Amino acid sequence: MDIRRVAVLGAGVSGLAAIKTCLEEGLQPVCFDKARELEEYWYHCYVFQGESECYRRRRNHGHNEGSCARSWGLRSCCDQNLSRGRLQPVCFEKARELGGLWVYNDEVGPDPTGPAGIYKGLITNVSKEMMSFSDFSYPRHVPPFLTSDDVLQYLQNYAENFNLLKHIHFNTTVIEVTKAVDFKETGKWNVCTQAQGEPPKTETFDAVMMCSGIYSSGKIPDYPGLNEFKGQILHSGQFRGGEEFVDKTIVVVGSSHSAGDVAVLSSNHAKKVYLSLRDGAWIVSRITGKQPTDVYINRRWNEAIPAWIYHPLLKLKMESLQDWKTLGIQSSTHPVKSSFMMNDELPVKIMSGRVVVRSGLQRFEGSRVIFDDDSYLEDVDCVVFATGYNHRIYMEDDVISGSTSQLELYLHVIPPRLEHPTMAAIGYIVTRGTLGPSAELQSRYAVKVFKKELQLPSRSEMLADIKKRRDGVMQQYNQDTPKIHPTKYNDELAQAIGALPSFWSLLLSDPKLAYHFYFGPVYPTWYRLMGSHSRPDARQRILQSGADMVHGITLKTVRPRAQKELQRTRIIPMRLVALCFISFLLAVLLWT
Amino acid sequence: MDIRRVAVLGAGVSGLAAIKTCLEEGLQPVCFDKARELEEYWYHCYVFQGESECYRRRRNHGHNEGSCARSWGLRSCCDQNLSRGRLQPVCFEKARELGGLWVYNDEVGPDPTGPAGIYKGLITNVSKEMMSFSDFSYPRHVPPFLTSDDVLQYLQNYAENFNLLKHIHFNTTVIEVTKAVDFKETGKWNVCTQAQGEPPKTETFDAVMMCSGIYSSGKIPDYPGLNEFKGQILHSGQFRGGEEFVDKTIVVVGSSHSAGDVAVLSSNHAKKVYLSLRDGAWIVSRITGKQPTDVYINRRWNEAIPAWIYHPLLKLKMESLQDWKTLGIQSSTHPVKSSFMMNDELPVKIMSGRVVVRSGLQRFEGSRVIFDDDSYLEDVDCVVFATGYNHRIYMEDDVISGSTSQLELYLHVIPPRLEHPTMAAIGYIVTRGTLGPSAELQSRYAVKVFKKELQLPSRSEMLADIKKRRDGVMQQYNQDTPKIHPTKYNDELAQAIGALPSFWSLLLSDPKLAYHFYFGPVYPTWYRLMGSHSRPDARQRILQSGADMVHGITLKTVRPRAQKELQRTRIIPMRLVALCFISFLLAVLLWT
Repeated sequence: MDIRRVAVLGAGVSGLAAIKTCLEEGLQPVCFDKARELEEYWYHCYVFQGESECYRRRRNHGHNEGSCARSWGLRSCCDQNLSRGRLQPVCFEKARELGGLWVYNDEVGPDPTGPAGIYKGLITNVSKEMMSFSDFSYPRHVPPFLTSDDVLQYLQNYAENFNLLKHIHFNTTVIEVTKAVDFKETGKWNVCTQAQGEPPKTETFDAVMMCSGIYSSGKIPDYPGLNEFKGQILHSGQFRGGEEFVDKTIVVVGSSHSAGDVAVLSSNHAKKVYLSLRDGAWIVSRITGKQPTDVYINRRWNEAIPAWIYHPLLKLKMESLQDWKTLGIQSSTHPVKSSFMMNDELPVKIMSGRVVVRSGLQRFEGSRVIFDDDSYLEDVDCVVFATGYNHRIYMEDDVISGSTSQLELYLHVIPPRLEHPTMAAIGYIVTRGTLGPSAELQSRYAVKVFKKELQLPSRSEMLADIKKRRDGVMQQYNQDTPKIHPTKYNDELAQAIGALPSFWSLLLSDPKLAYHFYFGPVYPTWYRLMGSHSRPDARQRILQSGADMVHGITLKTVRPRAQKELQRTRIIPMRLVALCFISFLLAVLLWT
Repeated sequence: MDIRRVAVLGAGVSGLAAIKTCLEEGLQPVCFDKARELEEYWYHCYVFQGESECYRRRRNHGHNEGSCARSWGLRSCCDQNLSRGRLQPVCFEKARELGGLWVYNDEVGPDPTGPAGIYKGLITNVSKEMMSFSDFSYPRHVPPFLTSDDVLQYLQNYAENFNLLKHIHFNTTVIEVTKAVDFKETGKWNVCTQAQGEPPKTETFDAVMMCSGIYSSGKIPDYPGLNEFKGQILHSGQFRGGEEFVDKTIVVVGSSHSAGDVAVLSSNHAKKVYLSLRDGAWIVSRITGKQPTDVYINRRWNEAIPAWIYHPLLKLKMESLQDWKTLGIQSSTHPVKSSFMMNDELPVKIMSGRVVVRSGLQRFEGSRVIFDDDSYLEDVDCVVFATGYNHRIYMEDDVISGSTSQLELYLHVIPPRLEHPTMAAIGYIVTRGTLGPSAELQSRYAVKVFKKELQLPSRSEMLADIKKRRDGVMQQYNQDTPKIHPTKYNDELAQAIGALPSFWSLLLSDPKLAYHFYFGPVYPTWYRLMGSHSRPDARQRILQSGADMVHGITLKTVRPRAQKELQRTRIIPMRLVALCFISFLLAVLLWT
């Protein structure tokens, strides 16, 4: 039987990519979005597992309306006007607007492990050209790094441009996804949803794309005495800018991007901010070598350098950036094995005493916080845990393994144990880059699997592949998370769907593009150069991305006085250098 | 006649150094300080020229209490308990506490060209070991870069430690300084002061040290339409953190340190911040090559590199730091000829669109601001001018030339046209480093001149020297300001007072110290190694300054887990490198 109607659970970055891809491939997506006043607590991102957990409690203990009533019920979530001739995506989204995590909300729920939100003053770590979907650019006037408003506006434009909105059912909570009675034959799913103020309703779909994201449930490690701690406990997902920290003593725990952001922003208000690091942190700036760091890093030739050359070079480079020891943030972990903390202000904040570094958290005693080196702080008002998220999807155990924090997903997309590959998880990865382009490729891959245009390997091969990736991450990072390297992973998915150009064919047909393919930044647009739904303007857009990146901040007219001087002061024209390099490369290639 | 009683006008950084030096040299300083409630407007720094201007108006137009009453009157400003056997400094300070500029005050006067104050969130550009006086260190626990509270606390500790407070007359405004009737014979001065709530009083002093500072009067260039501009006009000296800029459009004018700070801090609150640069800006970070930038720059061997090597190298280095063109801040002026803007956040603020760069300011039209490239902004709410200060001392014209913005001072200290060298100006310089150590050396120089231990050159030689320096600054910076290079200038003053060690003598007696003298940072403590009032612990303090600098931010105990790993991961021991270099240097020296 053909896949026609697809339930898309969540209308954040992943959900939008999923709906768009379904439409592109002739499927009919249906998407839902929840809560206007009733469920402000669950407001800013679609929390699939939160609901599901609640649902379980409800199932086990009877309909305990006290804890669950806010979210449960059912309504018809099906778009009645679907054109039956086409495949139909249906998106369910709990929130009242699209954008998921990118919708700012002042309110913070009482549960420190509740869903995440963004904070005031957020600036993206990733540059706009690397962050966009493959066939829809950020406007030229937008600066290279973005505020949350910029991102949200972009997502709204994306949804409008591709006419996605009519497929999204806002204010609709997903309660449960179960196999249909005839799942073994049809691969269909029953999706139970509830729109706000309406009774719950169950409907059958040909396929399901889960897009609820990994930021739904903050992880707080268990420390001795934590429950008796007299101060406030927050997770970084609940941090909104630190304005409430005036005259307070704050301890921030963690070495992630958000730990750095929380410490820096808090220090603008708090009496004193301490940053507790178990094993230091490798801090990098948003800008490296005159370019956005992500543009600098995400190039294919970087991936091709052998580890025995790359690893020591990277370490030397990192060690040259800061006096890690003096700053008190020296890490004993090799930068290759560590997560980076992207932050431009933290070194100066430490150097001026606004943020004080402490060793790992050991335990709590009343309002006292004790660190690994047995030093302690008295009268701590608030501890903010920037310690990551639980990566779980709660569902019937035979669908996706929920027993460990590691999801069992082939290529991080397809649950391998189902009789029919009619379910996909989009965006359940921890990336060193940005989610959007990966989620888009995941969607394209999933839809091709749904449509049986792609044949999956056998179950045992898929399980072996999952284990291999998992072991790889464990070996490199000593972490049990679905971590990926964006360039490598995206190329892998693109290869599978036939959207990855070949360097050698390009070299023959378009040497300039071949050079950019190998040495240039891996912009998402590369995945629209060939294959199904390729774009005729992809080549032009790739070559133009560098200029588009900085267009918004470049002065339209150079200062009159400076203009003349500058023409005289350029020492070596960079174009000449580039030309020499390309000639050299070609010469070497022709020679060998 | 001997100099005994010295009037010290102002108790800021320069004033404190002056009092301390007077006492050290057996003089009796008397210092005054003004305004508790009445004159909040003039609160945070001693404004000598403001008063004097007001006084003139008063003299010319009768006692117009309307405009001047806030500040004028007289009381006995002389310390009656002076021990006649010693020389007496007397310090007059308008404010109610010492610290001058470093005293934070929320209130801002109505006059945009009024006296300067500091703003919330200020972090010093200069590191603590470079900023301290030569014989009084910052506490070890203080971080390398300081908040205004750290600095103020230090100045208070300094005053208490050297028992300076009893020589300061707080809440006392200086109205006029004139030559005594018998000036030609005695070189004495009449100083007219007024303590708060008391009548004015004139007293005679053997010498006067002016220490009112150069930040007393903000400079706002005259632009067409400025007076009719409908928005608010501020000078950066009146900026207090930008919290009042919520939802406003702000234009910041200038390329100084403060322009960068104002733009960055405003952007945390304002709707949009524009930074208008006439000819770009060379932005440097507080940290360069793992060290505070001032520690990195201020070394004697830097001064010894020939210009034809140093200038192109500096330019290459600066060009490698940022993509100046993309950021829109490319300057056509060589970094040697330009002022730096020290700022760690501005590049990222520009890259994220929080601060938008525009070209130079051309003119105003209502609430419209028009730039040099004819682009314009509508509905600008506030323009902040970070365009520097007027460097003037108002006084009788034959004392110090007040007719141009350039002060006529030999070595930036002694007015050359007086019959007797009984007046000195302390701290009237624009330094690329920090004022304190230079002001201290100026005081030591001035007091030695007062005491006739130093012979001044002839008037024509002094005038020629002043002209030469002035021409030098004009040639290098195209500016008519008393600009100095701290290392060169301080060494020159130290040489004059016999406090500058000789590299070659050191090399024979103490090679380690000789190495530090030439290649190490020029800490102020170097000027206490020899000469009068040298300190026995100077050598130890010099060698210890590097460790003291970072003591406050270094973890007392390294993280247990990290400790073991780190011992294994050091690639090349830096001590070995240093040892090799010193051996090489010595070998070369012994060879030649």
